[in-house]
Amino acid sequence: MLAAYAVRADAEAPLDALVVGEIEQPQVPTGWRPVRVKAAALNHHDVWSLRGVGLAADRLPMILGCDAAGVTDDGREVIVHAVINSPDFVGTDATYDPQRSLLSERYAGTFATQVWVPSANLVDKPPELSFAEAACLPTAWLTAYRMLFSQSGARPGDTVLIQGAGGGVATALITLGRQAGMRIWVTSRDEARGARAVSLGAHQAFPAGARLPERVDAVMDGVGAATWSHSINVLKPGGTLVLCGATSGDNPPKAELTKIFFKPLRVIGSVMGTRDELISLAQMLVATGVRPHIDRILPLADAAAGFAAMIAGEHFGKIIFVP
Amino acid sequence: MLAAYAVRADAEAPLDALVVGEIEQPQVPTGWRPVRVKAAALNHHDVWSLRGVGLAADRLPMILGCDAAGVTDDGREVIVHAVINSPDFVGTDATYDPQRSLLSERYAGTFATQVWVPSANLVDKPPELSFAEAACLPTAWLTAYRMLFSQSGARPGDTVLIQGAGGGVATALITLGRQAGMRIWVTSRDEARGARAVSLGAHQAFPAGARLPERVDAVMDGVGAATWSHSINVLKPGGTLVLCGATSGDNPPKAELTKIFFKPLRVIGSVMGTRDELISLAQMLVATGVRPHIDRILPLADAAAGFAAMIAGEHFGKIIFVP
Amino acid sequence: MLAAYAVRADAEAPLDALVVGEIEQPQVPTGWRPVRVKAAALNHHDVWSLRGVGLAADRLPMILGCDAAGVTDDGREVIVHAVINSPDFVGTDATYDPQRSLLSERYAGTFATQVWVPSANLVDKPPELSFAEAACLPTAWLTAYRMLFSQSGARPGDTVLIQGAGGGVATALITLGRQAGMRIWVTSRDEARGARAVSLGAHQAFPAGARLPERVDAVMDGVGAATWSHSINVLKPGGTLVLCGATSGDNPPKAELTKIFFKPLRVIGSVMGTRDELISLAQMLVATGVRPHIDRILPLADAAAGFAAMIAGEHFGKIIFVP
Amino acid sequence: MLAAYAVRADAEAPLDALVVGEIEQPQVPTGWRPVRVKAAALNHHDVWSLRGVGLAADRLPMILGCDAAGVTDDGREVIVHAVINSPDFVGTDATYDPQRSLLSERYAGTFATQVWVPSANLVDKPPELSFAEAACLPTAWLTAYRMLFSQSGARPGDTVLIQGAGGGVATALITLGRQAGMRIWVTSRDEARGARAVSLGAHQAFPAGARLPERVDAVMDGVGAATWSHSINVLKPGGTLVLCGATSGDNPPKAELTKIFFKPLRVIGSVMGTRDELISLAQMLVATGVRPHIDRILPLADAAAGFAAMIAGEHFGKIIFVP
Repeated sequence: MLAAYAVRADAEAPLDALVVGEIEQPQVPTGWRPVRVKAAALNHHDVWSLRGVGLAADRLPMILGCDAAGVTDDGREVIVHAVINSPDFVGTDATYDPQRSLLSERYAGTFATQVWVPSANLVDKPPELSFAEAACLPTAWLTAYRMLFSQSGARPGDTVLIQGAGGGVATALITLGRQAGMRIWVTSRDEARGARAVSLGAHQAFPAGARLPERVDAVMDGVGAATWSHSINVLKPGGTLVLCGATSGDNPPKAELTKIFFKPLRVIGSVMGTRDELISLAQMLVATGVRPHIDRILPLADAAAGFAAMIAGEHFGKIIFVP
Repeated sequence: MLAAYAVRADAEAPLDALVVGEIEQPQVPTGWRPVRVKAAALNHHDVWSLRGVGLAADRLPMILGCDAAGVTDDGREVIVHAVINSPDFVGTDATYDPQRSLLSERYAGTFATQVWVPSANLVDKPPELSFAEAACLPTAWLTAYRMLFSQSGARPGDTVLIQGAGGGVATALITLGRQAGMRIWVTSRDEARGARAVSLGAHQAFPAGARLPERVDAVMDGVGAATWSHSINVLKPGGTLVLCGATSGDNPPKAELTKIFFKPLRVIGSVMGTRDELISLAQMLVATGVRPHIDRILPLADAAAGFAAMIAGEHFGKIIFVP
Repeated sequence: MLAAYAVRADAEAPLDALVVGEIEQPQVPTGWRPVRVKAAALNHHDVWSLRGVGLAADRLPMILGCDAAGVTDDGREVIVHAVINSPDFVGTDATYDPQRSLLSERYAGTFATQVWVPSANLVDKPPELSFAEAACLPTAWLTAYRMLFSQSGARPGDTVLIQGAGGGVATALITLGRQAGMRIWVTSRDEARGARAVSLGAHQAFPAGARLPERVDAVMDGVGAATWSHSINVLKPGGTLVLCGATSGDNPPKAELTKIFFKPLRVIGSVMGTRDELISLAQMLVATGVRPHIDRILPLADAAAGFAAMIAGEHFGKIIFVP
Repeated sequence: MLAAYAVRADAEAPLDALVVGEIEQPQVPTGWRPVRVKAAALNHHDVWSLRGVGLAADRLPMILGCDAAGVTDDGREVIVHAVINSPDFVGTDATYDPQRSLLSERYAGTFATQVWVPSANLVDKPPELSFAEAACLPTAWLTAYRMLFSQSGARPGDTVLIQGAGGGVATALITLGRQAGMRIWVTSRDEARGARAVSLGAHQAFPAGARLPERVDAVMDGVGAATWSHSINVLKPGGTLVLCGATSGDNPPKAELTKIFFKPLRVIGSVMGTRDELISLAQMLVATGVRPHIDRILPLADAAAGFAAMIAGEHFGKIIFVP
């Protein structure tokens, strides 16, 4: 079948590690369900896989792609939940499985005409969402939904600071937070990105590390070391820092333990989201009318052009592949 | 000072129990703060007081009015939180004080040139809200905010059913729920009210007791006996019924205990709200741009005309008095 | 294989509907795991099944028994979680599955040499618990654990009232609540049962409906109609009524909606418990040293004697069958 | 009146900064209530005050002591809640007040014949507790109660690791956690302290930094830098680190942000506790029969001997002063 897959790791020239072409259908565990992919969305995670980050050499070749929407063999229109639990996992929060993986890490991903997943990973696609829109949800948007609505403790009217406007999670946080009645502030090292954040719905944009007009109820932080002290300092006593990543490093100069216990604060780690949260997210888009911004839609055969655009940083919004 | 006050109880002709005119300043507990009233909002509670419901004869004459916004003697623009705790109350949730009262029940109300309250009952009025808008918040809108965001457990995307479109709390529930990203359904015995609910933001209106397209995550119910079984039946397992009143009676034909434990369900009583919730509500209006609908603004001297309009049911939205 | 099973429904003479003898192995869904039963515990649920309550005629003959501990074919010592979800259920709380059943309702129960369940229904038996002790946990004790520790909101030091001392759930509530640092009060219509409750750890026993020395933080109620108003009245504002049954009927004379919303109160339905709660319960017995009281241990071949003792009300504690 | 107070700061010889003798009654804010002190407990906080840590020179002389139980002028037996909020604070969690202080930091402390506090800081002393026992509660024991029962999310049966056996908070954590049905593990750099922790109720003691038999549900950490990475590493996914101090420093070599978000984990800062938690704690002691261990009871006039014992580390349990 046609697929976009990594054949090796190339930290310098990731595009050179990508092949778009025919590949044999992958071996999948018994009982997994095939989904005919109607749309799949590109994430930075896919570029990192080509660079060899998070994708072991002994799993190559690996079909890339975490996000997809499609149709099952009995005609059900579905969104694919990308968090794959180990078969032995019996807990109630999929993100607490230490053996969890995302599609394309251990099992074949979504950049193909078909993808296979456990039936618990299938969620009904609301008819109000197109396949391309639905394909945008399972990674960045699901991460943002969980951060804001399961982890932050923030209520409508509360002030939420989002560190580092620009990325996919930050964009989803701005949009979802605004649609949920929160006051949304963002920081950015780049004035144009801050302005774009405001155009997406943020109430105000600030330079990175800026002194804010008042303390905030919650901070959403995926930057890590570079923003850590600022995130700690701008919170109200009792406030919550939701941490979803550490793109600038994970060892800030000051760990700020005294402020955490004395102020006091809560720091909540968050990674991806659950099936239930994905369902609520999809319903939220229907209820509010808001949709992910799509930068371009390409045939899967032209996936290399989509990867190239992401590597060059030319895109604003999601890049979608259609098999 | 000028005030609108009840001089007796008249169950049949409540307007006859109302006097608008000069009255001596009330005795207030030591330490209470005076607020010059800039706007006060009329509630059904005020009409009930004239009918003698909830207002003991030995407290007459009583200045009416629960809701107000105004200015303190040092120039601070404030919203007045109407829940007055007993001086001995030391708990953290004002609505759990068994000795609590609303303004105009035990202490003089807001339909006057001045009102006195404990300083903990003063909340900053955001400059973005007019005094008339701010005066609409402390009763119906605060009740709705607490029901949806502190009690229901509903998240953005969840479906919330509001029983009995038309009243002040239901109107606030529709507006706030929609602004928070929820799917809002309402029931009404009256088609025109259902249509108006949709114009306020409800996604869909149903006749009272209707079979719904699917089960819901939460029900907001102030009707009581007449809607109780319907509310219980339409909930998903694990769903929440938030009960804020029982205008149709409080003893339904079936108490439905088996469904509560077997389905299972949660039933959460809710009354008014806390100071913190009032602050968040005001901030939510600023963040979303949504405002209470104001039917008319009258001089306090013409308060009788406002009461007459409410008794006749001629209004849609809040009736405001300006001293 | 040897089993104790219902062959018909007999509301008057339930023992006449019981057969203890050889029966063919039941058909079980693909993938279910066999467990060699080492001990199984008798519940009132089993007597009700013989009376035809909750067990449809077209499912007969049905092997009875909800509770068991045993050994899998690869030697793992396990407790059997009795809540069987429908294969399509994908939620995170097993008790919210509207198609859930208990063992012996739809699938063959535990009074047999073997029982089959989905692998997610197997929980490690701690070595510190005997098989007989472990077999007591999955129904009454699990129900009690969830009520107290997931639903009530009560903390150590809080006062919890348990309505109707005597039954299996009430006994477990007393023991677990006391071991968790709560102040435990019970009501009973029978003075001897009250005294026994105190011997189990209750701080104080009261006659049914008694005026209490002070209001309580939470009430655990499985009685329903007969205790409903008392349960509502004795709670503090903000208190929680956890409802797990309605053995005296489910339609009390007064539904008490006004008290629920005005006081205000929370009413939480609760039924059985989850796998995670069963694990925590077993660990709690290990950590505290407390054990279920076992009345007698009988060979499975003598199961009829155990049923007879339960019907006669001669037992105090659990009746265990050993195949 | 007789008091024990700091007259200067002496980092090297703290005893030299202590005076026990007559002092004028302190100025107190209007409306504060006098309490005749019946017993007051010594904390390390008092020694730190003598060293000048947390006690500004311009506030000297300062009567020391955070913890007390006594009698009001109308004969009410009370425990004194030591967290003093600023007069403008109106939030619902006293520990979230950025202007909060403990008795002896800004206002005169409890090592005197009388102490004055706002009436909201008075809590009924249960008659079952002696004044000396009650005086042990408001600092270390309250801190421990809040950590375990408001912050950790741990339930009976869960495993809780306490870092650094030996201090007052750790001792209270061990006792309270054990009485609440949790499995309690402790670490200690000192074998004798570990053994003592087991004698207090811990299930098992480990050397500092030890590899544990399994991962834990929650960690209670007041040590900070020296234990931070161990605390992060031993938690289960979804587990909670409650941080109440950083006696070894607040900047660990690794901040461990990646583990916090990827595992994921929750880090909850916690400081002292609320009035409601103090009430629940006192009730828990009554319900369980457990009592703080008292090392010695001294006349207030001999307070210097108590300070000397604490500085020398000769004590095990609380040192009580009786005016």
